[in-house]
Amino acid sequence: MSEEKNRTDVNELGEFGLIEHLTLPFVNRRSSTVKGIGDDAAVIKGGEQELLVSTDMLVEGIHFDLMYTPLKHLGYKSVVVNVSDICAMNGIAEQITVSVALSNRFSVEAMEEIYEGIRLACAFYDLDLIGGDTTSSPRGLVISVTALGRASREKITYRSGARPGDIWCVSGDLGAAYLGLQILEREKQVYLENPGVQPDLENQDYLVGRQLKPEARRDMVLALDKAGVVPSAMIDISDGLASEVFHICKQSGVGALIEESQVPLRDETQLMALYFSVEPDRLRLTRRCGYRALFTR
Amino acid sequence: MSEEKNRTDVNELGEFGLIEHLTLPFVNRRSSTVKGIGDDAAVIKGGEQELLVSTDMLVEGIHFDLMYTPLKHLGYKSVVVNVSDICAMNGIAEQITVSVALSNRFSVEAMEEIYEGIRLACAFYDLDLIGGDTTSSPRGLVISVTALGRASREKITYRSGARPGDIWCVSGDLGAAYLGLQILEREKQVYLENPGVQPDLENQDYLVGRQLKPEARRDMVLALDKAGVVPSAMIDISDGLASEVFHICKQSGVGALIEESQVPLRDETQLMALYFSVEPDRLRLTRRCGYRALFTR
Repeated sequence: MSEEKNRTDVNELGEFGLIEHLTLPFVNRRSSTVKGIGDDAAVIKGGEQELLVSTDMLVEGIHFDLMYTPLKHLGYKSVVVNVSDICAMNGIAEQITVSVALSNRFSVEAMEEIYEGIRLACAFYDLDLIGGDTTSSPRGLVISVTALGRASREKITYRSGARPGDIWCVSGDLGAAYLGLQILEREKQVYLENPGVQPDLENQDYLVGRQLKPEARRDMVLALDKAGVVPSAMIDISDGLASEVFHICKQSGVGALIEESQVPLRDETQLMALYFSVEPDRLRLTRRCGYRALFTR
Repeated sequence: MSEEKNRTDVNELGEFGLIEHLTLPFVNRRSSTVKGIGDDAAVIKGGEQELLVSTDMLVEGIHFDLMYTPLKHLGYKSVVVNVSDICAMNGIAEQITVSVALSNRFSVEAMEEIYEGIRLACAFYDLDLIGGDTTSSPRGLVISVTALGRASREKITYRSGARPGDIWCVSGDLGAAYLGLQILEREKQVYLENPGVQPDLENQDYLVGRQLKPEARRDMVLALDKAGVVPSAMIDISDGLASEVFHICKQSGVGALIEESQVPLRDETQLMALYFSVEPDRLRLTRRCGYRALFTR
C-alpha cells in the first residue's frame, strides 16, 4: 500500500540488461555450482549424492494478493516453498532457478524488491541462484521456482516408508498461517471500505509472519542428521495435517491415529481462533500452517 | 479454431486427480531417474557427469497466440526450447519438470492436448517428466519448463570458449520461423475480418512448421560426439544470428566476420521474403529461425 518514489520502466533496461541488473547482488556459495547465470544452461557438479528436484509456481490472484503481500516477502516465500519440498525428502537445497512473468505495471524497482527477497532466502538457506527467465505478461505476476538439492541415497526419505507401529512427529505448531491470512483479509476489507484507516496488525506478528514469511524446516533436516536419525517417511505440511497424513498413509499402505489434543497450537492461534470462530481441531487438521515437517519413525 | 466436443471442468478432478490423470500416459525412460512424480521432490542419480539445468517460461499473449497455436504444439514447443538450451551446452537432456497455470476457460481436454504434446516431446527426445505443478490462473495460460541434462566435464561447451581463427558453423537455414509467424498472423487477420474464410496454408508446411513445431538440435550433439569433435563455443539461435554471435564474441573476447551470403536460407524462405518484402540479410541476422546450433571450432 506504499507509493513508489522512483519508477524505472522495465523496457529501459532491455531483457539482458534487466537480468544482469537484478542478479548482480547475488553471489555463489556452493562448491557444486560450476557455472551459474550467463550461459544457455547452468552447470552443476556430478557426485556421489543423489539429486533432488522440486518446482512450484505462484500466481497472482491465486496464491498471493499484492494488496497485503510485500514483494520482498513474496520473493522470499517463492524460494521457501521449494526449499521446504527438498527438506521433506530429508535433503539440503543447494541451487534454484527463478522465472518471473510480469506485466508492465511493475517497475524495475518492483522487480528489485522481488529479487531482494529471493536474495535474502538464498543467503539464509545457502542457495545459489543459477538461472531463470524474466518475461512480460499481459496481466499479473507469476513466479516459478525450481530447487535442486542433495542427499545421500540412504538418507532420502519418501512418503512411502511409514510402517505399522511408527510414531508420527510434526515439527511445530499448526494453523497459524491460516489465521494470519484471515487477519490480512480483514484488514484489506477495512482498507477497501475506508482507505484512510491504517491496518491494525498490532500483536499479530506471529500469525501474520507465519503467512507472509514462512520458513522451511532445514533445521529439522540438520537436527535429524546430527542425531543420526533417518525417518521412515516424511512430507511437508502446508495446508493442514489431514491431507498430508493421508498422503503418507496411502503411499505407505498404513493407517494412522491422530490424537487431536496432542497436535500443537500456539496460544496466539487458540485466541485468534476464538475471534474468527474456527474450531481448534479444524485448525490442526485442515488449515494452512506455513511449513512444517511431518515425519514418521 | 476447432470446437471442443467434450468439455470436462478442471475442478471435477481436483488438483491431485488432475495431475494423476494427466501424467498417467508418461513412462520413465532414463536409468538416472530414481523417483519421478509422486513425492515432494524428484530424485535423480548422482554420477560422474556434470548436470546441466535450463529453464524457460512461455506466456500466452507474449510467446504464443492460441488463435493459431494448437495446444499440442504448444506443449511440444515448451519442452523443445529447453532441450535446445541443453544441446547448446553440448549436453543431452534427460529429465524435465513442467508447471502450468491456466484459467478456468481451459477444460481437462485442453490440458490433455498440452500434455500430449509434452509426452510426444519426451518420447522423441528420450526425456522423463519428473515433476511439476498444475495451478489455476485468473486469466491466460503460462507454461514453465525446467530441463536437466548431462555432459562430461570435457565436453561441456560454453559461450566463452571461442578463439581467434576459429571457424563458425550454423546447423541449418535461418529466418524460416519468422516467416511462418508472418503467415499465421496474416491468416489470423483474414479470419478476424471474415470468420467464414478457411486459412490458406497450402505449401507453407515448412515455414509454418518451423514456427509451430521447431526441433532442438540434439542430432548435432550426437553427431559431434560421434565425430570426436568438441566445439570451442556453442549457443542456440532462436532470434537470429546477430545477437547470438554477439553473445559469443562478448563472452569469448573475440570478434567475428559474418559473410552474409554464406548464411543458409531455404528457397521457400527466399520466396516468402519477397512476398513480405523482407531483406534476405535481415532474415539471416535478426529474425526468428526455430532452433539452430551455432558453434565455433
